[in-house]
Amino acid sequence: VPKLFHQELEHLQHSVLRLAGHVEDAVLSATAALRDRDPDVAAEVIAGDTAIDELENEIQEECLKILARHQPVAVDLRRVTAVLLITTDLERIGDLAVGIAERVESVSRPPHFPIPAQLDRMTERSLAMVRASLDAFVQLDPGAAAGVIRADSEVDRDNDEIIRSLIVEMKRGPDVIDPALSLFSAVRHLERIADHATNIAEDVIYLISGDMVRHHIERLKGT
Amino acid sequence: VPKLFHQELEHLQHSVLRLAGHVEDAVLSATAALRDRDPDVAAEVIAGDTAIDELENEIQEECLKILARHQPVAVDLRRVTAVLLITTDLERIGDLAVGIAERVESVSRPPHFPIPAQLDRMTERSLAMVRASLDAFVQLDPGAAAGVIRADSEVDRDNDEIIRSLIVEMKRGPDVIDPALSLFSAVRHLERIADHATNIAEDVIYLISGDMVRHHIERLKGT
Repeated sequence: VPKLFHQELEHLQHSVLRLAGHVEDAVLSATAALRDRDPDVAAEVIAGDTAIDELENEIQEECLKILARHQPVAVDLRRVTAVLLITTDLERIGDLAVGIAERVESVSRPPHFPIPAQLDRMTERSLAMVRASLDAFVQLDPGAAAGVIRADSEVDRDNDEIIRSLIVEMKRGPDVIDPALSLFSAVRHLERIADHATNIAEDVIYLISGDMVRHHIERLKGT
Repeated sequence: VPKLFHQELEHLQHSVLRLAGHVEDAVLSATAALRDRDPDVAAEVIAGDTAIDELENEIQEECLKILARHQPVAVDLRRVTAVLLITTDLERIGDLAVGIAERVESVSRPPHFPIPAQLDRMTERSLAMVRASLDAFVQLDPGAAAGVIRADSEVDRDNDEIIRSLIVEMKRGPDVIDPALSLFSAVRHLERIADHATNIAEDVIYLISGDMVRHHIERLKGT
């Protein structure tokens, strides 16, 4: 039975990585749609969310089946529990991609102001955090997870720079306020994607150490 | 053993309601601090988050112990799993209260613009959703959970009204843009609190029905 359990756990892990792949694509497309003011790409992201939701449901049912069938304890129990929590975070990142895509229409309304150049870098950094948090989970590497948590401050810095340049645009003329506020919201969504990567990393640390370092780390990084 | 299991489950439920009480207080204080531009109350909310984090950790450890010790199946397994997910949502509502409190300082900087009157109503509605979602969990009542999901559109309407009145203020003079943007962010945090109540309600429905109605409902309500 332990062999079957580990096969099922491996399958579970593959499913999580597959879900992460879909979610990553959604985020990339959503921010590209924003940058290019492209409503067609935005519509694709919105339509694609159903597949992400279904995969989340499948994975969570798989977790429940494994718990009921194999009744794992100790680190195995923590690993399955971590999948439950990580899957929830990934699904919410998918929702955030939809939220970004939904703002493309209002950002595209005139007057057109320049989309801050830091948007692509912030997207890349946020997704690198998501990928690294999942690597840390697969490798059971709390050091790598701690690195993800530290990287969040760089995304926050990108976020601050973008907000500052949006404020400059908004002060230039009241007509820019509405579309710039929509971009402001979209950028905040991106910042929350990085927060979910941090949550995943915290789950990994918690899972591996088995004790309560999560919030201790939160306090160390001063949020 | 079933009797002991149900005692422990009851204890777990009490702990969740205790956590919810702390979180509710934090949200009420944070929005009061915003409305009254009161940095002292805001500082209390920020300091109080540690207790919320610790309680979350305790509850999640309690869940893992119950899973390892009693190896529940079927609805009992789903109930413990729901506690894991609900606790995560409650802790993040606590983080959102901190996010609101952190914006009190910049909202308090001159020039002072009127804080939209709908803020109190939106706070009350969001917290009513959180309370109702937990009642639905305790009573295992999917109908009540569906009511929470429907109520989210009222919070969205409050949110839209507040944003519109903030845009009017921002167009009145560029000096208002910075503090009004901070209030804009705080209000978005409040809207996300209602989203977490929706997530809890979805977990209740999922837990009770045992099949995948969550995202089906999401599509029905058209988000």
